[in-house]
Amino acid sequence: MPFPHALPPPLAHSSAADWAAFAACALERLRAQAPLVQSITNRVAAQFTANILLALGAAPAMVDTPGEAGLFARMASALSINLGTPVPAQADAVLEAAHAAQAASKPWVLDPVAIGALPLRTALAAQLLALRPPIIRGNASEILALAGYSGGGRGVDATDSVAQARQAAIALAEQTQGVVAVSGPVDFLTDGRNQLHLANGTPLLTRITGGGCALGAVMAAFAALAPLYAPHAAAQTQTQPPSPLLALTAAAVLVYTIAAEQAAAHAPGPGSFAVQLIDQLAWIDAASVRERARIEVQR
Amino acid sequence: MPFPHALPPPLAHSSAADWAAFAACALERLRAQAPLVQSITNRVAAQFTANILLALGAAPAMVDTPGEAGLFARMASALSINLGTPVPAQADAVLEAAHAAQAASKPWVLDPVAIGALPLRTALAAQLLALRPPIIRGNASEILALAGYSGGGRGVDATDSVAQARQAAIALAEQTQGVVAVSGPVDFLTDGRNQLHLANGTPLLTRITGGGCALGAVMAAFAALAPLYAPHAAAQTQTQPPSPLLALTAAAVLVYTIAAEQAAAHAPGPGSFAVQLIDQLAWIDAASVRERARIEVQR
Amino acid sequence: MPFPHALPPPLAHSSAADWAAFAACALERLRAQAPLVQSITNRVAAQFTANILLALGAAPAMVDTPGEAGLFARMASALSINLGTPVPAQADAVLEAAHAAQAASKPWVLDPVAIGALPLRTALAAQLLALRPPIIRGNASEILALAGYSGGGRGVDATDSVAQARQAAIALAEQTQGVVAVSGPVDFLTDGRNQLHLANGTPLLTRITGGGCALGAVMAAFAALAPLYAPHAAAQTQTQPPSPLLALTAAAVLVYTIAAEQAAAHAPGPGSFAVQLIDQLAWIDAASVRERARIEVQR
Repeated sequence: MPFPHALPPPLAHSSAADWAAFAACALERLRAQAPLVQSITNRVAAQFTANILLALGAAPAMVDTPGEAGLFARMASALSINLGTPVPAQADAVLEAAHAAQAASKPWVLDPVAIGALPLRTALAAQLLALRPPIIRGNASEILALAGYSGGGRGVDATDSVAQARQAAIALAEQTQGVVAVSGPVDFLTDGRNQLHLANGTPLLTRITGGGCALGAVMAAFAALAPLYAPHAAAQTQTQPPSPLLALTAAAVLVYTIAAEQAAAHAPGPGSFAVQLIDQLAWIDAASVRERARIEVQR
Repeated sequence: MPFPHALPPPLAHSSAADWAAFAACALERLRAQAPLVQSITNRVAAQFTANILLALGAAPAMVDTPGEAGLFARMASALSINLGTPVPAQADAVLEAAHAAQAASKPWVLDPVAIGALPLRTALAAQLLALRPPIIRGNASEILALAGYSGGGRGVDATDSVAQARQAAIALAEQTQGVVAVSGPVDFLTDGRNQLHLANGTPLLTRITGGGCALGAVMAAFAALAPLYAPHAAAQTQTQPPSPLLALTAAAVLVYTIAAEQAAAHAPGPGSFAVQLIDQLAWIDAASVRERARIEVQR
Repeated sequence: MPFPHALPPPLAHSSAADWAAFAACALERLRAQAPLVQSITNRVAAQFTANILLALGAAPAMVDTPGEAGLFARMASALSINLGTPVPAQADAVLEAAHAAQAASKPWVLDPVAIGALPLRTALAAQLLALRPPIIRGNASEILALAGYSGGGRGVDATDSVAQARQAAIALAEQTQGVVAVSGPVDFLTDGRNQLHLANGTPLLTRITGGGCALGAVMAAFAALAPLYAPHAAAQTQTQPPSPLLALTAAAVLVYTIAAEQAAAHAPGPGSFAVQLIDQLAWIDAASVRERARIEVQR
């Protein structure tokens, strides 16, 4: 294996430190691989998302034209779909890309922004859910709405707590056989069997536009590493080991939110914070991830 | 009332200091209310506009898909419409949202970017004008073109002075029974009966893209507070008091342009200025607004 | 002529210092003219591109709606077309604008982002190539694909070297009778007869989104000055003098990449670099261009 300190994904009995060590290692692997990440996202967050991916070491490609999006999904290493401004042509591109990613077994992320009250994106999210997205990311209100538990939040803001969305997230993960991540002051991640609480971050992430949207694309960048771990997973003798995707999704959250903490320490306001977050993602190293990760593993 | 120092809108005999004090108070109310502001804007200014609204303390939602835009306008506290890049789907969303806002008596802002020479947006602006937008914001050339006085400017740049647009602005305000704001080195605001000249600002606002577009959304955020003042207005015994919307629009201009002055003091160039403006909007306090406001009231 | 130190374009025997002096002079002319530059670009780079043009001293207008784009191309001084996210409506606008620019003899730039593997934009680029764009800008893989030599790169990234694209660039320039610029660690420019290597820049330009896209718009801003030089070109007695457009394109590259070097010196990371690049483009002066230009002229 090309990485001297490559680590297998955590197992069911792994400690919080094991999860953090895996995240730190995955960051180094991501930078070595520079995965090509297709991002279909809203127009508000597109520039910020591309800059976040570049800073992290991934190669972004915002290909969202029908007739190109599906072709590109077969070339890319991973796909991120964000429903923030689903104009008709982009909605077609989303379905095309998701089908192509699914057919080519490429990892992909669904971020069902502001579903619930808004009918077009809610219907589109339901179509995508039927394809069983490997990773779903949203705030509590979006996860509740996607699972059919409630009607959604106030625009892009959650009106429900992460704790309220816990059962909905687990149910969604069981339904998709994938990973579900609920963003909030403490993020909740589950693959339906294992639960993680990740407590890094800063309120400034909610004071800039695209702070959550970019995280979805970062999850896709880490998920692009999944093929590296598939053999390990198969070799495990546990009956229900945590999904490698759960560990990679956790790595994305940890790297992003720890960089955000470092950015907040240097930022006098939200404008500076957005600039600093990009800088910090270019700098963050494995040691910072290991030392600063705040993880609680539940079994 | 929940605000110990809540102030009623200025009256016809109010002093410049009264208008400034109202603006300072409105800023605090806006932060307490965190109004949900729907912004349908051009793709160039969308990210900046959302970050400006977030920094100010409002909750932006850039919902501009036909089939969703009208529904959302009924949920939002105010709506901002900017015609900067009116692609066909967005033009449909604009009409849908404006009709819904009008039907639900929600305040909304029209920013007729670069109308005059460009036929599609000029026709769209005429349709919106017929709905009598509560607030219209533009540069001198755009206001002249909307009022039918001239053919518009050079792209997004004004080729006419604010003074040249004065009569057109008053005529528009009489036609709509709303507020019209003409941006320039000194901004001119009118409700058709009262005239304000607001002299804060910095030339750097014209050296960044979206500097004017974001102000339209900030006006919508302040206009969202209008329901707080309606009872006051009805109780007034004056026959033609200034519209509460005029005072709220002036508050938007003052807060934005004073924050811009503070940003310019910290910015070595236009790139830094855009970042600083977002920071300063997160920090600006009532005292700065009261002390720095440069207002001339005409009766 | 209004410029005391106006310089004619370099001739075939001109030195590197002559090319640099021309670029420095062109920068001052650009700021005096403030050309109106229509930019039809992808949604990821639109805000950054507009801010770059404003900082440089040009007047950007991102008019890309079918029914408006062609009309505006006749009003603007130059046009920049970037195929980064060619949704259907924008593709129509691109053709409309290119035809109008061609008919009105306005200079225009084609940036065929990520063509080759993606069929819609590849077909669109071929239609535009048939109109003989006065300036073509791309990375090595894009230039090879446009010339029909290969299938393109990996998304927006080049997988070929600038040297590999040299013959393709010269062939394209002969075909269009225009200028072709290949971006890379050392940029290669040709008008089919004269070759320039420009070595300024910083790797940080590849770590921010829109770094190359904005350069295409900067080339259009400099190309807008071409009418100033046409009489000179006609008066020249050389049989094959370098095209004035070659000198203006070189000026664009030099100003942009020297500003980027200055930005990199002040930027701790890619987020700060994007902000600094805008600041530096507002500050860069003729002396810096003359002193820092790294040019190799080949005949």
